[in-house]
Amino acid sequence: MNDPAAPLDSLPLRDDLRGMSPYGAPQLQVAVALNTNENTHPVPGEVVEAITQRVHETAASLNRYPDRDFTDLRRALADYLGHGLTEDNLWAANGSNEILQQILQAFGGPGRSVLSFVPTYSMYPLLALGTGTEFIAGDRAEDFSLSAESASQQVRAHAPDVVFLCSPNNPTGTALGLDVVRAVYEAGEATNTVVVVDEAYAEFARFGTPSALTLLEGRPRLIVTRTMSKAFALAGARLGYFAAAREVADAMRLVRLPYHLSSVTQATALAALAHHGTLLATVEDVKMQRDRIVDELKRMGLTPAESDSNFVFFACHGDAHEMWQALLDRGVLVRDVGIPGHLRVTAGTEAENTAFLEAVEDHLSVR
Amino acid sequence: MNDPAAPLDSLPLRDDLRGMSPYGAPQLQVAVALNTNENTHPVPGEVVEAITQRVHETAASLNRYPDRDFTDLRRALADYLGHGLTEDNLWAANGSNEILQQILQAFGGPGRSVLSFVPTYSMYPLLALGTGTEFIAGDRAEDFSLSAESASQQVRAHAPDVVFLCSPNNPTGTALGLDVVRAVYEAGEATNTVVVVDEAYAEFARFGTPSALTLLEGRPRLIVTRTMSKAFALAGARLGYFAAAREVADAMRLVRLPYHLSSVTQATALAALAHHGTLLATVEDVKMQRDRIVDELKRMGLTPAESDSNFVFFACHGDAHEMWQALLDRGVLVRDVGIPGHLRVTAGTEAENTAFLEAVEDHLSVR
Repeated sequence: MNDPAAPLDSLPLRDDLRGMSPYGAPQLQVAVALNTNENTHPVPGEVVEAITQRVHETAASLNRYPDRDFTDLRRALADYLGHGLTEDNLWAANGSNEILQQILQAFGGPGRSVLSFVPTYSMYPLLALGTGTEFIAGDRAEDFSLSAESASQQVRAHAPDVVFLCSPNNPTGTALGLDVVRAVYEAGEATNTVVVVDEAYAEFARFGTPSALTLLEGRPRLIVTRTMSKAFALAGARLGYFAAAREVADAMRLVRLPYHLSSVTQATALAALAHHGTLLATVEDVKMQRDRIVDELKRMGLTPAESDSNFVFFACHGDAHEMWQALLDRGVLVRDVGIPGHLRVTAGTEAENTAFLEAVEDHLSVR
Repeated sequence: MNDPAAPLDSLPLRDDLRGMSPYGAPQLQVAVALNTNENTHPVPGEVVEAITQRVHETAASLNRYPDRDFTDLRRALADYLGHGLTEDNLWAANGSNEILQQILQAFGGPGRSVLSFVPTYSMYPLLALGTGTEFIAGDRAEDFSLSAESASQQVRAHAPDVVFLCSPNNPTGTALGLDVVRAVYEAGEATNTVVVVDEAYAEFARFGTPSALTLLEGRPRLIVTRTMSKAFALAGARLGYFAAAREVADAMRLVRLPYHLSSVTQATALAALAHHGTLLATVEDVKMQRDRIVDELKRMGLTPAESDSNFVFFACHGDAHEMWQALLDRGVLVRDVGIPGHLRVTAGTEAENTAFLEAVEDHLSVR
């Protein structure tokens, strides 16, 4: 079995996969990794103990399949979100990518389309490809903003089956106004379009930024997705979820793989939710650090976007790849998101951000 | 959000999902549950402690995404399987259903087909539907056996892109001869057909039954899938895997969701693999109990199939649903797999099997 590998193209791969490379940020070993929008705060000891305890209680019965309906977890997620939601409105999967994949399996697929507004989360077109859904790349304004008028006009023009609205948007970082969500939902009335608001980073929003959760009542085609990867500092546990009308959650039962959510995942998420106060305490620190990055980059003459997330997107007024390499040479890994003249940096701990800001300043002084 | 649910059909569901019900065995609370082919032995204390310890070590860094390539886990799985396999030949996912789904995403999909031989694992047509792959239901002999000649003739006739061979077959329980696998592989040469041997229950095979792992060398279109749900008594942890040529494993990177395997799942599986001797000790007990069920059912005048798995498929010489209900009334839940005149029972612990056999005998005495 140790022959040199034959090329991938020797296999009967699907034509639409030929020549593709797998998605993913480079897994480089660097001192300061600020490239994947992780929460760089380790999980607090209190939560480590709670997870360990709960997994310990679960381990003896791992010979049994998990609770297929993960009712306890859906209830805990509903309690966390509030807004009058109950477990019937909740759904969860292995990361919000799987959530979005299941939504496309139910409402997209061959002969159907999904519209999003680029630049946005780079997994959307890949999830569309993987489910055979046509991806329609809608436009944003020059400054990457999206108005209610522009968004709803594009929905009417393309009549998509599904719309993905990323708020705050990745990689640009700014939250959408709820007027945009409302306008897109109304524009999709005639075509029965499912509107997904991807709020993966919602907990990091600036003070006073409302969530699309407030719009769910009376809007059965609206889905608001969240994740425990970011604010909950639990990217390694892979737990994404959504809130929507009960029938939308029911529809997911038709497309999910049976027992898709392991008992260990359910135990880990339940333990973390029971300590959400402790976990979310880091959010305030991250927000402060993010605002510091925005302020400092401005001071250096660069142009960061306003951020409602745990990352900052900025115009580097020069060659982005050159700056990316210069920062890496100084031990700091950020993300080149493929938008000319721009980079994205995750707001890490105070020390990590200091290292990043010093590396930027150093690079600017020599370029 | 607590209005009575609107019917599912009010949503813009895909046409091929309309009217469907979710897959899954009834989750009934009964004294003796022998319906889902779980290993009914609880996870041994030594393994519970190992899992707990490993998850504890992982928990503090759950803020980071998992190792996307799960290299340690692939290496441990290769070491467990032997046959000269290395980590490059291994792939894993959340249960073997996700493994099969990824295989269909890479090699099946719209415009392509998968052939299997019914009755077989009931998820195959659902996985085909979910990935837009045409499902071709091939035939077996009257006694549910499948010969090399019949299988290869059907492969030539249908020219499928993928073949699923379930060995031992679920729900009938008997392993395929390797001559069948070889013949199917050769018959698929002209059409570059990918041949998947689903060996979910392989560890329970009768003495001397060879695995299709022995055929991998020199067969780049052959994939052998396994799971930790059965022999490893780890259904709750959701860990399926396969061994194949390196380029087949590489191809999965094009279709898997990024970071699909959580750090907690990787930790749990690694801990279990480090104690595989302890976990697999229950396999011998299960096999003895399975043989006891076969012998006893024969003694009662019923007709069980020879079993290489942890379950027994038997002709009940009467109405299957009536017997299913009669057993349930006596506190024993078995599986009505929808094949007239037949039921399937999981080989549980000695006490559970005694309860099952007594319930059967009692039912036969009154019917």
